[in-house]
Amino acid sequence: MISRRDFIKATSLTGIGLTIIPSGVLFSKEKDEVVRIGLIGVGLRGQNHLDLLLRRADVEVVAICDVQQRMMDMSKDMIKKSGKAMPQVILDGPYGYRKMLENKDIDAVIISTPWEWHTIMCLDAMNAGKYTACEVMTGATIEECWQLVHTSERTGMPLMMLENVCYRRDVMAVMNMVRQNVFGELIHLQGGYQHDLREVKFNDGVKPYGGGVEFGEKGFSEAQWRTQYSVMRDADLYPTHGIGPIAMMTNINRGNIFTHLTSYSSKSRGLHNYIVKNGGEDHPNAKVKFKLGDVVTTMIKCKNEETILLQHDTNLPRPYSLGFRVQGTNGIWMDVNKSIYIEGRSKEAHRWEDAQAWLDKYDHPLWKAHAAKATGAGHGGMDWFVVNAFVESVKRKTNTPQDVYDAVTWSAITPLSETSIQQGGETLAFPDFTSGKWMYRKNDFAKDGTY
Amino acid sequence: MISRRDFIKATSLTGIGLTIIPSGVLFSKEKDEVVRIGLIGVGLRGQNHLDLLLRRADVEVVAICDVQQRMMDMSKDMIKKSGKAMPQVILDGPYGYRKMLENKDIDAVIISTPWEWHTIMCLDAMNAGKYTACEVMTGATIEECWQLVHTSERTGMPLMMLENVCYRRDVMAVMNMVRQNVFGELIHLQGGYQHDLREVKFNDGVKPYGGGVEFGEKGFSEAQWRTQYSVMRDADLYPTHGIGPIAMMTNINRGNIFTHLTSYSSKSRGLHNYIVKNGGEDHPNAKVKFKLGDVVTTMIKCKNEETILLQHDTNLPRPYSLGFRVQGTNGIWMDVNKSIYIEGRSKEAHRWEDAQAWLDKYDHPLWKAHAAKATGAGHGGMDWFVVNAFVESVKRKTNTPQDVYDAVTWSAITPLSETSIQQGGETLAFPDFTSGKWMYRKNDFAKDGTY
Repeated sequence: MISRRDFIKATSLTGIGLTIIPSGVLFSKEKDEVVRIGLIGVGLRGQNHLDLLLRRADVEVVAICDVQQRMMDMSKDMIKKSGKAMPQVILDGPYGYRKMLENKDIDAVIISTPWEWHTIMCLDAMNAGKYTACEVMTGATIEECWQLVHTSERTGMPLMMLENVCYRRDVMAVMNMVRQNVFGELIHLQGGYQHDLREVKFNDGVKPYGGGVEFGEKGFSEAQWRTQYSVMRDADLYPTHGIGPIAMMTNINRGNIFTHLTSYSSKSRGLHNYIVKNGGEDHPNAKVKFKLGDVVTTMIKCKNEETILLQHDTNLPRPYSLGFRVQGTNGIWMDVNKSIYIEGRSKEAHRWEDAQAWLDKYDHPLWKAHAAKATGAGHGGMDWFVVNAFVESVKRKTNTPQDVYDAVTWSAITPLSETSIQQGGETLAFPDFTSGKWMYRKNDFAKDGTY
Repeated sequence: MISRRDFIKATSLTGIGLTIIPSGVLFSKEKDEVVRIGLIGVGLRGQNHLDLLLRRADVEVVAICDVQQRMMDMSKDMIKKSGKAMPQVILDGPYGYRKMLENKDIDAVIISTPWEWHTIMCLDAMNAGKYTACEVMTGATIEECWQLVHTSERTGMPLMMLENVCYRRDVMAVMNMVRQNVFGELIHLQGGYQHDLREVKFNDGVKPYGGGVEFGEKGFSEAQWRTQYSVMRDADLYPTHGIGPIAMMTNINRGNIFTHLTSYSSKSRGLHNYIVKNGGEDHPNAKVKFKLGDVVTTMIKCKNEETILLQHDTNLPRPYSLGFRVQGTNGIWMDVNKSIYIEGRSKEAHRWEDAQAWLDKYDHPLWKAHAAKATGAGHGGMDWFVVNAFVESVKRKTNTPQDVYDAVTWSAITPLSETSIQQGGETLAFPDFTSGKWMYRKNDFAKDGTY
């Protein structure tokens, strides 16, 4: 986060406005004032956010909106149990959210809807003058990414993609180590999304996870919409959990940018096999051809000459792993073997040591400050932090710590990887969504006094 | 290995001669006859081979050749201690090996010299009618690779690159599992060479490892020649340990081929930093610019649509790891966390389990048969196997289990990755060194009755 003084300095230094509301509106709210939030989409993911917001004294949930009665009922139950006031409830088809945006009393919205709705909802929200948070994947095409940037710049409304892994406790500890030069100069980083999603992509239409091989209209929750991406697109469909933390560690859009990218995709077997095994060869879905390769590998090069490797692996039986690796001139951390090696500090030369003592020692100040509050929140506590960062940004009327440039830079990996694969593994230039502002922007993410 | 009948069948089936000596010479030696071998290069690596050969009753070392008195003295001591007859000793400059090749009593040669000598020595040896084994990296350019193929095909003399990791015990167990369909259909594989070589690339000119920051003329052993590759070439300089086993598991040159490749290289810091730290900023080598990026990442796609990831990482402080990963439709093995997961067979869903019990259960028949002999040989016993495979091939006058097509296909990754990096991460077509024979060749590597 940037302070007002730094913000003004940065703005005048560069001669280019940052994405931020006009300065007259800055600090219009006191830090302890209540933020009024509307939720667009209260499916299972939106309900996680709803739960977190209902626990906060500094937030009033003033409106919720969805397209499904079942999800709305679940959300209303949750609100009743919380003892908070029932917000405006909008169940009025896919564009019902636009009614919410007309409400002048809403400061901010959180969007948790199927991916294909993210861009239009973000655009509408920013155009309505709302601080906008959106679940991961903002911009399904490069053109959509540019639209989001241009709209945020024009309206001055921040867009924050809710990439929670930037706040994972071990990841933040490692970022802390990076900043304290434990790894020396960074050389190579890895991350990805290696998660057997077969029981997310298919279910019985009743339960959210597994129990059947249905998707689309006959599926429930994510299987209703997410699986279609595996049918239609061969790409790294979900790069942000891996790239978010890596981008923050390597100062992407803040003194560094991605310059080019290449993706390779393997054969596609896992989803079809799953259908045949669990639904039989005669199940209609056994005829579906899935374009998504089972393992998609992406290499990215940075302006400052670091290399980054991303892996997307969601169709095969495998243990969950985001596959992080952070490697510099002094040493290396990997999460798959929970190990670290730092030259001259690790006890034995050439030997891995358990990373936990290091992660404890370098526990990030934000985690030290808020661990008690975060405990019990989704995904090991990191959901608390990402929602908190958005709420605190709205309260202070500052830019969000992950901003529109991050949102689209990380999301753009999907369409870029798709094009690369489609062209037989061709290498593509990476767009500079900051249009040169990366040369002057500073990395304040999760630094002292921020959130 | 192929039997004579299979060999003839394969040859007539394809209409193209395999690399093999003319059939009139087949089986000219009985299986228990003694093979006469000459060693070209008896530096530290050649001395490993010498030691293994001196222990064998079926081998007579009839000549040794080197360019350094010190290495020759060490080798002669070793021979004296073995009680075997002193072979012809050739210490006559870099082309002294050609005298050895004139000796009609030599059946085979083993070449263990600096990389830049491999091609010419292999060509000369095959042209002299010798079975030829060569240490890893055969062919520094694509043109050299083709020369080796054409010469082997024209002379009928096999060329075996001594890629020992194909015989690593855990790797062979995993290959055994691949063949027994434990992993299902293979989807994605990884390997590489992740080995902190700073004390190999630099020494004090006396000891082979470390103790100084000298290389080239002032260095000793590998530092005399190998380090210059880090100065001059930005490439995956050492791909064969990773790709050899992966190629055998995916039937490369035997029903499958590599189709294209892309490499990215990181900034280069590790070697310069090492010199400054250990030799001071004023050491003359502190002025050397190393072209080799610290981490080089290469993606390869196969005709049968598997993806392969290779990593080359030799300049930074890090624990040794070849980084193997074998992943199929049923599960995944990784060596960095010594873990495996096989759907329906691993005890807990979505959880890694220790791989050792699986590696023991699927211990390869070759290891079961020869573990006692291999124990004590270099690199955990695998050196025994690779030398044994060569000796047994010479005895039987069959093709070698790793043959000229493997040697150049695996080695070609270096020049291809160099070109890709030079062109900014461009994607390149992979040459088919078999000229179509891959469509008909069968994978007999380490199958029953072979070696």
